Amino acid sequence: MTSTKRATSLKDVADAAGVSVTTVSRLLNGSLQLPSETKLRIDKAIQDLKYEPNPHARRLSRGRSETIGLVVPDIANPFFATLVSAVEAAADTRGLALSLHATLNRPGREIAYLRSLARNHVDGLLFITNHPDDGELAALINQTGKVIVVDEDVPNARVPKLFSDNELGGYLAGCHLADHGHRRVIYIGGPQEMISTRRRSMGLERALRERGGPFQVFRYQGNYTVEFGREAACRFLDEGIQGTAIFASSDEIAIGLIEVLRARGISVPHDVSVIGFDDVGPLHLFAPPLTAIRQPVRALGERALALLLETNWAEPESLAFEELLPVEIVVRNSVAPPSKS
Amino acid sequence: MTSTKRATSLKDVADAAGVSVTTVSRLLNGSLQLPSETKLRIDKAIQDLKYEPNPHARRLSRGRSETIGLVVPDIANPFFATLVSAVEAAADTRGLALSLHATLNRPGREIAYLRSLARNHVDGLLFITNHPDDGELAALINQTGKVIVVDEDVPNARVPKLFSDNELGGYLAGCHLADHGHRRVIYIGGPQEMISTRRRSMGLERALRERGGPFQVFRYQGNYTVEFGREAACRFLDEGIQGTAIFASSDEIAIGLIEVLRARGISVPHDVSVIGFDDVGPLHLFAPPLTAIRQPVRALGERALALLLETNWAEPESLAFEELLPVEIVVRNSVAPPSKS
Repeated sequence: MTSTKRATSLKDVADAAGVSVTTVSRLLNGSLQLPSETKLRIDKAIQDLKYEPNPHARRLSRGRSETIGLVVPDIANPFFATLVSAVEAAADTRGLALSLHATLNRPGREIAYLRSLARNHVDGLLFITNHPDDGELAALINQTGKVIVVDEDVPNARVPKLFSDNELGGYLAGCHLADHGHRRVIYIGGPQEMISTRRRSMGLERALRERGGPFQVFRYQGNYTVEFGREAACRFLDEGIQGTAIFASSDEIAIGLIEVLRARGISVPHDVSVIGFDDVGPLHLFAPPLTAIRQPVRALGERALALLLETNWAEPESLAFEELLPVEIVVRNSVAPPSKS
Repeated sequence: MTSTKRATSLKDVADAAGVSVTTVSRLLNGSLQLPSETKLRIDKAIQDLKYEPNPHARRLSRGRSETIGLVVPDIANPFFATLVSAVEAAADTRGLALSLHATLNRPGREIAYLRSLARNHVDGLLFITNHPDDGELAALINQTGKVIVVDEDVPNARVPKLFSDNELGGYLAGCHLADHGHRRVIYIGGPQEMISTRRRSMGLERALRERGGPFQVFRYQGNYTVEFGREAACRFLDEGIQGTAIFASSDEIAIGLIEVLRARGISVPHDVSVIGFDDVGPLHLFAPPLTAIRQPVRALGERALALLLETNWAEPESLAFEELLPVEIVVRNSVAPPSKS
């Protein structure tokens, strides 16, 4: 990408009009109705600042033959399936095709797909990683551009990033557990280097710390898989860990955990409380219905595509930002005060 | 497609060598190890019959830029997500890219994607429909070629078709219910014109009829959705239908059904037995764990792609066949004899 004289950006217009970048973008895309006073302010800012939508960004949103690449770890995982579904719907309304790729445990796939983008096989890429980067991925992303990092971080990649507010999610879970009297919590998380794992854990601890008094978090960090849920459950049960509640930080982990608890005759929430994260699957039909932090999965997909189309790739200094979408707690029946025994 | 003199087909080679078409195809793709005696027989058949792999079929399986289109009703639906995942994995091993499209409730999308194929935006298409065709889709498929119809039929389309053995699935469900003494069964199915709905119902009835004596099937046919599962459940409960067992013929239908049964305090299997179909979701964690017919979802995806690559599109007379993959019953805890009361 060549440097250009600093032209007016969407952000400049937004600042001048006193609205968010998203608002200006959606107004220009015709996907938002605004009060006329607000619309006038934006139009005035556009004129005063001589704003011209980036012709390259415009190109991304026209023409039936344009293709967006979407790289996810595993399409069969309901979280990613739902996200893919949302991206496909959003792409379709804009006349864009979707080229879908899964990385699973295949080494080098992420690098290969980024190179494919660089060779113009797709016009932009939404990228969801699931393992730590030694720097190669970040470097390639920075060279290539037109990549939005979604759901998990690629540290040092200087592109727009979109995540759920994982720290808030951990905090809401921790508050809910603390409200019920829990102070010794088992945390089953993904790989320890991933920001989702770290931030959910941090949020959990922040909630317990704020409550005052001693608390303890027992961390089992591995993978967002059913297998790891089972493995972690077996480990803390065999180790005799004295936790009164378990924060199972994905639907898959919760499934593995609950299989083991059931097999060992451990009753939820009577013997131990459980709180989950994701809430994509039919957690409401589990026994008991599972309390969980719900991720805004469809919004993540829609917003990721919008960011890809709105971003002015010619302005590198405006690229490196992080946007967080809020999560919420869905209270069901799997959390109760610790039993006295 | 122009007609050619009848050249040796893969099937001719397979017949001569006494093996399946799949075996010959996989040998030629290098994806199968065979006993040398078998391999020699195949090589001999190839030479004797002067078999030449269809150059166009070969083209489908080479070159990183080749793209397969996959059209599914809804990517977020775990059944389709799993199928997409299997197709993507199989495509990736062959160096093919995957262009994914969802049809949802969007009229004309199926026709649009087929036309995209005709304009060579993709090199072949795996096509899953979810509604009845007035003939337009079939006509377009027949003109276009290089389409495999998967999971649901498009009547009069003269291309290879690949389905689960739905009739066997209904039969296994019916036998299991009949084994427990059930003779009055509520069947909740998809749209009545779809072959999955008809065949599962036919299999159910075949099993009940074989058992001898009077039997009754109460049919509620609508959609493979959670909403329709709820609606059908409310309807038969409000109508006071005297069924002792329910065949909920998809995971989504089962979820909607179970929500309503729970809300109304109806106990499974004590008050009514339930048997499902698909078994993609975590049915083993429901209360009670759900007995269900399991579809070979990943095999469907893998086989669909293999068919697309193996089929000799220049031989129209060998195109119109239907392949069925077997289903199995997964027995859990939701079926018991009808209660005496």
